Amino acid sequence: MKIAIIGLGLIGGSFALELKKNHEIFGIDSNKKHQEQALQLNLVDKIIDIEKIHKMDAILIAIPVDKTATILKKVLDLILENTVVFDVGSTKEIICNAVKNHPKRKNFIAMHPIAGTEHSGPKAAIKNLFKNKVNIICEKQYSCEVLHKKVLKIIEPLQMRTVYIPSAKMHDKHIAYVSHLSHISAFMLGKTVLEIEKEEKNIFDMAGSGFESTVRLAKSSPKTWTPIFMQNKKYILQSLDEYIQNLKTFRQYIQNQEENNIYKIMEKSNNIKKILNGKFKNN
Amino acid sequence: MKIAIIGLGLIGGSFALELKKNHEIFGIDSNKKHQEQALQLNLVDKIIDIEKIHKMDAILIAIPVDKTATILKKVLDLILENTVVFDVGSTKEIICNAVKNHPKRKNFIAMHPIAGTEHSGPKAAIKNLFKNKVNIICEKQYSCEVLHKKVLKIIEPLQMRTVYIPSAKMHDKHIAYVSHLSHISAFMLGKTVLEIEKEEKNIFDMAGSGFESTVRLAKSSPKTWTPIFMQNKKYILQSLDEYIQNLKTFRQYIQNQEENNIYKIMEKSNNIKKILNGKFKNN
Repeated sequence: MKIAIIGLGLIGGSFALELKKNHEIFGIDSNKKHQEQALQLNLVDKIIDIEKIHKMDAILIAIPVDKTATILKKVLDLILENTVVFDVGSTKEIICNAVKNHPKRKNFIAMHPIAGTEHSGPKAAIKNLFKNKVNIICEKQYSCEVLHKKVLKIIEPLQMRTVYIPSAKMHDKHIAYVSHLSHISAFMLGKTVLEIEKEEKNIFDMAGSGFESTVRLAKSSPKTWTPIFMQNKKYILQSLDEYIQNLKTFRQYIQNQEENNIYKIMEKSNNIKKILNGKFKNN
Repeated sequence: MKIAIIGLGLIGGSFALELKKNHEIFGIDSNKKHQEQALQLNLVDKIIDIEKIHKMDAILIAIPVDKTATILKKVLDLILENTVVFDVGSTKEIICNAVKNHPKRKNFIAMHPIAGTEHSGPKAAIKNLFKNKVNIICEKQYSCEVLHKKVLKIIEPLQMRTVYIPSAKMHDKHIAYVSHLSHISAFMLGKTVLEIEKEEKNIFDMAGSGFESTVRLAKSSPKTWTPIFMQNKKYILQSLDEYIQNLKTFRQYIQNQEENNIYKIMEKSNNIKKILNGKFKNN
């Protein structure tokens, strides 16, 4: 198959690495340097212009979420009847709504593989990034079943576990809590610690692996995450408000030395164990 | 050497595992079940009563920080001139102040190895828990130099990197930011997500490795952490206030769609990379 990948960063590049075994991969990227790197790293067979997109059998869009809707509409305008287009955006509502009434809506599969690292760009592309990860497909009811199956076939070698969420809105709400909030929490933890610890030596000496794990996501790319936070504003604000309220309650308990409440609130949070263990077991 | 370990949980038990090769290990624990488990797991050679403590060459106190000061005073009262006592508490100011004027203050080494897991009890004890980890010794100036060297010799096989902080107060302040705040941040993240995600299936499906890493510390023991939060109240409140303020600022930026500020605040947090990478390089 001829597959075009629009956006040759961490995600697009990692897809390329996996798909190149079975397909001819054409890269599209607005960044000249990324184009060159993708060729050097042998992620793609050729760099093409978006105007050539009608020659493709499948098109993956892996660019920042704020650019996805515009490019997706353009791509849908250009493609032939049997071409399938799929994306990897971390938010789905704005993207799905943008093409809701497009005559080729059925050619689009709204996808979100839950995978990534804190690195970015073509050089960050790695093999097995998607192995055993969850892959969400939203609003499948608006996609052509044959083309949906075509995408499943293409991504089969990546060994993801695909689940379906019928509503893009519901996807965005849940993902705000389990992914976007974690990022904000880590970014602000990093900021708070950097501010107090003007002498880096002290963090260096005292930072245990606990801190490292909690703050890991603060290494993520602002370029990726700014548009995600903008696109999922509503649910992120909701989750942030609840998070801040919980922190304030905990602060009050410490202030008043309410040991019993502190104990109980932590004991409840321990329930996260069960869920994470369940996750591991199934992976 | 005859070494007594008071408190046979994760930390005391993991010390026991390492020290047993070269020393005779005597266990003291108020919990009958932990006594039995420590014997079964071969962590200690014998369980003894605290009244026998004067027969020891060295004593490690590895109990919750709110119990440490009382036990430490009792132990210092009972020991002979050349016995060394060291603890592993995550807070140091209250403990150091409690024995400031004790006639045997010089027999005490105030220690804090930055190591742990989210598990607790004798069964959680593991080998190599301390390998390459930072070990802080506070207020060495009040300890006898010969006994200080004796402790360094005892812990040598654990392969920690010992650093010195002359002020227990300064230790507590820094550790509030780089360790205690991370725990609160994770506990409250766990709580927030559990509350919204009443259907656990959704967390299970959508939780990526990012969430897992950020929330990991929410699995920690409330029994260990309640007293730590109480003992380090002052600096934890300070760090929490700054953290909450940073989250509120970020919230405001999202609310007002100040993309440039969102980008910049994350870019600054990215500096945590350098510090963590430096840490790795040296470990």
